Amino acid sequence: MSTTALNATHDPKLRSWVASANQAGCDFPIQNLPFGRFRTAGSSEAFRIGVAIGDQVLDLKAAGLVDSDDMNALMNAGVKERQALRAAISAGLAEGSSQQAAWAKALLPQAKAEMTVPCRIGDYTDFYTGIHHATTIGKLFRPDQPLMPNYKWVPIGYHGRASSIGVSGQVFKRPQGQTKAPDAAEPGFGPSKRLDYELELGFFVGRGNALGEPIAIAEAEDHLFGVALLNDWSARDIQAWEYQPLGPFLSKNFASTLSPWIVTMEALAPFRARFERPAGDPQPLAYLDAPSNRESGALDITLEVLLQTAKMRAEGLAPARLTRGNTTEAAYWTAAQLVAHHTVNGCNLQPGDLLGSGTLSGPQPDEAGSLIELTQGGKQPITLPNGEKRTFLEDGDTLVIRGYCERAGAVRIGLGEVSGTVVA
Amino acid sequence: MSTTALNATHDPKLRSWVASANQAGCDFPIQNLPFGRFRTAGSSEAFRIGVAIGDQVLDLKAAGLVDSDDMNALMNAGVKERQALRAAISAGLAEGSSQQAAWAKALLPQAKAEMTVPCRIGDYTDFYTGIHHATTIGKLFRPDQPLMPNYKWVPIGYHGRASSIGVSGQVFKRPQGQTKAPDAAEPGFGPSKRLDYELELGFFVGRGNALGEPIAIAEAEDHLFGVALLNDWSARDIQAWEYQPLGPFLSKNFASTLSPWIVTMEALAPFRARFERPAGDPQPLAYLDAPSNRESGALDITLEVLLQTAKMRAEGLAPARLTRGNTTEAAYWTAAQLVAHHTVNGCNLQPGDLLGSGTLSGPQPDEAGSLIELTQGGKQPITLPNGEKRTFLEDGDTLVIRGYCERAGAVRIGLGEVSGTVVA
Repeated sequence: MSTTALNATHDPKLRSWVASANQAGCDFPIQNLPFGRFRTAGSSEAFRIGVAIGDQVLDLKAAGLVDSDDMNALMNAGVKERQALRAAISAGLAEGSSQQAAWAKALLPQAKAEMTVPCRIGDYTDFYTGIHHATTIGKLFRPDQPLMPNYKWVPIGYHGRASSIGVSGQVFKRPQGQTKAPDAAEPGFGPSKRLDYELELGFFVGRGNALGEPIAIAEAEDHLFGVALLNDWSARDIQAWEYQPLGPFLSKNFASTLSPWIVTMEALAPFRARFERPAGDPQPLAYLDAPSNRESGALDITLEVLLQTAKMRAEGLAPARLTRGNTTEAAYWTAAQLVAHHTVNGCNLQPGDLLGSGTLSGPQPDEAGSLIELTQGGKQPITLPNGEKRTFLEDGDTLVIRGYCERAGAVRIGLGEVSGTVVA
Repeated sequence: MSTTALNATHDPKLRSWVASANQAGCDFPIQNLPFGRFRTAGSSEAFRIGVAIGDQVLDLKAAGLVDSDDMNALMNAGVKERQALRAAISAGLAEGSSQQAAWAKALLPQAKAEMTVPCRIGDYTDFYTGIHHATTIGKLFRPDQPLMPNYKWVPIGYHGRASSIGVSGQVFKRPQGQTKAPDAAEPGFGPSKRLDYELELGFFVGRGNALGEPIAIAEAEDHLFGVALLNDWSARDIQAWEYQPLGPFLSKNFASTLSPWIVTMEALAPFRARFERPAGDPQPLAYLDAPSNRESGALDITLEVLLQTAKMRAEGLAPARLTRGNTTEAAYWTAAQLVAHHTVNGCNLQPGDLLGSGTLSGPQPDEAGSLIELTQGGKQPITLPNGEKRTFLEDGDTLVIRGYCERAGAVRIGLGEVSGTVVA
């Protein structure tokens, strides 16, 4: 199979006995049902598998739906098993369900839950699918050749650091490292002065593949469990000095932050879009091409980036939006193409592995997915509603990414948000 | 502390009641005591922690020395605890030990043991410390600029793939992927025609560090557990087309192979060497410099590479040596510098993480650590003893790396070997 067909779990008329799930604008209506790991805030319990419904978390083990707390084992399930679990959760949370009395005891308000990274991430790969981002940032690093000759043929990717991935709410210290000004004779050392965010989607691998057994693109989506929001923090000044010839390293691996809820590929079924190459661009090689991928390989997700400085927080000001864009315009490669490419050489993916999309900047300047793009390499500061200016992130800044899907005929679902704060 | 002081466990007069450990040329005398994970070959037992002694494996749990099979937990021990365990193993295996009768039952012949990757590898980082390799290969990829301006300042590294790391004996399929000849208009797809090996050391992290807390270079060796041999297989044609701008990806992550035994930093204490920068080269920045690192930061290990083709195997010919070299001449950065650099931005290392040295080619052409160097980019084939020629690896080829330490006044210790075979 390629993409998940619509079924009863997507019915716009479906309502839940959890009242908050039926409110307009809610990220987690009964049509969504994303997975995460939670425990009671302030406790030292082991983290358990939960599903977000309205403003509550359903404890899957307490509800009798799973018998283990191992999210990676759940992610390893086959597509049919996954769909059966989704159908059972949907039926039990639907208005009129006979499970209501029992499952009501398996709910915890999200406000009282502590979330963690949604699964054990064995390997983290970050791709570079945002062609507008690649072009804009390419101009800054390599004015003579913004887009490499391989870009429209190879879904460029590299391995990232799994150990430093945190969950929304992550607070991290500003990284220090080597940097070198273009006109300096020698590098210096100190805190990064060009700390940036990167707006990404994170695709989680479900069932893996054996070493030496590539996943064909037509089967690739069967191996995807779902999607979360990902902020791939980047120290641009460290990156510029270190990245040749083996790619980014310390400029990225000090922290990456994920939203706590994985929205499944099943939940995203109503929000798929045609995937078309711009006229004149090369067609993908055979291993990256399939009818299903052309018909519905793209995801239609709206992404917003917001910033709240320490001063804004002190003044009681909400985070201010920097950008809003849509994934269908930003990504040059689909998630299925990333899976097919990653495994074509025999590389094995495992349940819980994370594939970052790369920075998803839209074609317009105000759709940029990073500050280096928004400020033209730090040359044009942006002005915030309270008059503060930013080129790059300053200590105390909180960066928030939100994502959601809206389409006529479907119930809006949200990816929730990922926030992170840099401190001195 | 910086490097481990010599103590009774290094005494050249020390002999073991395991007779095979006392034979000249043995890789695993009582002065070595490397750690690995094993089970009885052909069984489906859980893997247990073992120490190699002569041609035997000592089962640490059966000997009452540990109470868990979790190697990563053992690696997380502090330096004193680690040294105490080493002292206990050494005392129990020494001639005249009162443990002999009991521990004799905890031995399994290595010939009857199946080994696995020595620990759970959370993150794998590969560095690029081999300056002769970097220069030679740099000439092939970038004739105008073999050594990047950052090379003598930054210990260049990148993240590798943990899931595809296997143990000695690994057999893997030749990777396929995109390649593009310099004069071709478009890339093609197929099996790699330029499959290579890379001769590396793999440093294993012991105790980790918390996110945001760098490890100072003077303490770096306290966080290193030990060393194994690593073959970082590389598909040069895939690499040339994919590596810009984010570094190697599919050209590396189809397989990497480790030797099964981790030789500890304690065992290597007699084989440390001064670490000196060539005259005229820049001195390391402060965070990469410490008196202990200058005095004894380098490792004195001899490395050999051998090749056995399918035809040689059929003819009963042993693997033929391609190269031999020494790490002290090959590495521009020490293991302590790699740890300090990796964490200086706050990145957290965890017990069991693997740090590859990068290809350790010596200054002479016959000390090269890869075929691309030995054959001058595939232009000058090498001739094997049976008359076969090779530019790159062919199907059925088995590549073997061996390592050992020899010094006057010390008992020779070996790292064992790592072998791997490519098939069609």
